[in-house]
Amino acid sequence: MTETARPADAPALTPDRVEAAAATLAGRIRTTPILTVDGRELGVEGTVTLKLELLQHSGTFKARGALNFLSTNPVADAGVTAASGGNHGVAVAWAAARLGHRATIFVPTISAPAKVARLRALGAEVVQTGDVYADALAACREHQATTGATSVHAYEAVDVMAGAGTTARELEAQVAAAGLPPIDSVLVACGGGGLSGGIAGWLGDRAEVVAGETDGTAAWARAREAGRPVDVDVSGIAADALGATRLGQLAFDTLAGAGAASVVVDDEATIAARRFLWAEFRLAVEASAAVPVAALVTGAWRPPSGSHTAVVVCGANTSPADLDPDPERQTP
Amino acid sequence: MTETARPADAPALTPDRVEAAAATLAGRIRTTPILTVDGRELGVEGTVTLKLELLQHSGTFKARGALNFLSTNPVADAGVTAASGGNHGVAVAWAAARLGHRATIFVPTISAPAKVARLRALGAEVVQTGDVYADALAACREHQATTGATSVHAYEAVDVMAGAGTTARELEAQVAAAGLPPIDSVLVACGGGGLSGGIAGWLGDRAEVVAGETDGTAAWARAREAGRPVDVDVSGIAADALGATRLGQLAFDTLAGAGAASVVVDDEATIAARRFLWAEFRLAVEASAAVPVAALVTGAWRPPSGSHTAVVVCGANTSPADLDPDPERQTP
Repeated sequence: MTETARPADAPALTPDRVEAAAATLAGRIRTTPILTVDGRELGVEGTVTLKLELLQHSGTFKARGALNFLSTNPVADAGVTAASGGNHGVAVAWAAARLGHRATIFVPTISAPAKVARLRALGAEVVQTGDVYADALAACREHQATTGATSVHAYEAVDVMAGAGTTARELEAQVAAAGLPPIDSVLVACGGGGLSGGIAGWLGDRAEVVAGETDGTAAWARAREAGRPVDVDVSGIAADALGATRLGQLAFDTLAGAGAASVVVDDEATIAARRFLWAEFRLAVEASAAVPVAALVTGAWRPPSGSHTAVVVCGANTSPADLDPDPERQTP
Repeated sequence: MTETARPADAPALTPDRVEAAAATLAGRIRTTPILTVDGRELGVEGTVTLKLELLQHSGTFKARGALNFLSTNPVADAGVTAASGGNHGVAVAWAAARLGHRATIFVPTISAPAKVARLRALGAEVVQTGDVYADALAACREHQATTGATSVHAYEAVDVMAGAGTTARELEAQVAAAGLPPIDSVLVACGGGGLSGGIAGWLGDRAEVVAGETDGTAAWARAREAGRPVDVDVSGIAADALGATRLGQLAFDTLAGAGAASVVVDDEATIAARRFLWAEFRLAVEASAAVPVAALVTGAWRPPSGSHTAVVVCGANTSPADLDPDPERQTP
């Protein structure tokens, strides 16, 4: 924490920023439900509460950060722009539409038609350009430079992270309202660190934050070892959603400041956990959301006996087709 | 209500039976979460609360009734039996395993291997016999007569219906705990009437119960017109889960006694509502569970302005494969 790439006066992710984000978002995002079960259902001791953030607008937690950012920062007449056909792009398109702003989303030409159709259904102008993501990003930056359009970072912005952190604030309130014991630890997937950082910034030392990654997307694990964000090679099943090349500096400072733990699982465990969530809970989730569940069911992370563990099930922008238990199609 | 096939001294489905079932089931079934949204998200006025009963053990509400029945009635040494490869069979197998009883489930030889595998995974002995369901049912009855095994009716038993009714008791408690206004109406799918009857028996005149059916499974609509349960021809998308040939008499008495309403949608609306629940809420549900949502989004049932409508999303024993938005498989 002695060296940081962030300016000394850059805002930190503090609980009051999460509190402010919650006030901004009130009534405009879904209060996603919790499901509390006996830990033995996931092969662990104690109590487990699943925070079902996959039911959020746009299909992931990212709606919170995008809407908070666009609600608390000036937006250019040219509207909002992003280069992403994934969770971030969908969340930005959703938030822009919610606020009445134009959204221009850049994606490579190889993007799945369903993703493009989804962005257009949200009212976004979709520009398909170039063969790879880097081409779309370059076109997005040119659009931004030319038109002055407002861009939203996918995670490394205090208002994005504070929005994501409202997930933990909501979770704590729901746990209290249900008369459950306080949360001892929160397991959450980590990509660039927007969600896990937001949660750590809200919880501080009230609960342990365990940031889960696959071995192909271990930006927090490597940063924690190195004492600063470092580049990682990105690969594997969760690369689409968790594949940040390096953890954000703000996320690093916040996670390290809260003493967050790290747990790394492999792709096989992630795939198995995703199937487990469908088979046992009828939750169809994306691979990233299965990562913290994989950490529990494999025993990679073991909650202390009698403790209360929360698991953020963070998104479901996935094709559920391969969850079909039977090659012979059943009646729907 | 003047003529009934039930004996005059047959137990009615009263709130105290639901209360007793809730005590029996406490800590043994999941408290399934609620998701409250602005009604405009479903194209209606007021507030809508989705009761996510698809997240229940066994994948449907039927776990409640099966477990309550087997917990409050004597079970033979020969164990429990049922003829069903569907929601009822899975729930009976689950409840029997939960209580340490043997379960023998009869299914026709054409049953999908995934269904058979699921029953076996729950510890049931699965007997595959005959070409059609009637063959499996005959074999089940012979097994019962020979061994004295305990059979569980899928809906027409007061302890089954009382178990199902705990869904509404739980819903009311959750709505109150969340500080939401009381429920004005509950939309729920109706097959033989176990769930809708249980809910009506609990709620009485505190809220309007709207029992939703497809036009191919309209046992309550026809019974309501005739003033008594009558046989209906069963067909269509929801036949698998809602296809009772006639409403149970206990269900009829309870629904009629509570003045329950009827709404009928077609298969096309049901399929569209199922896709809508995935696209907008990331809920992968079975067709029957989409029926009450179809009633809302098509306007077949319109909640009064400013009212609070609950929708029971009752199950997800479905293949999610055809919810895939894109023929080109995406990363999971």
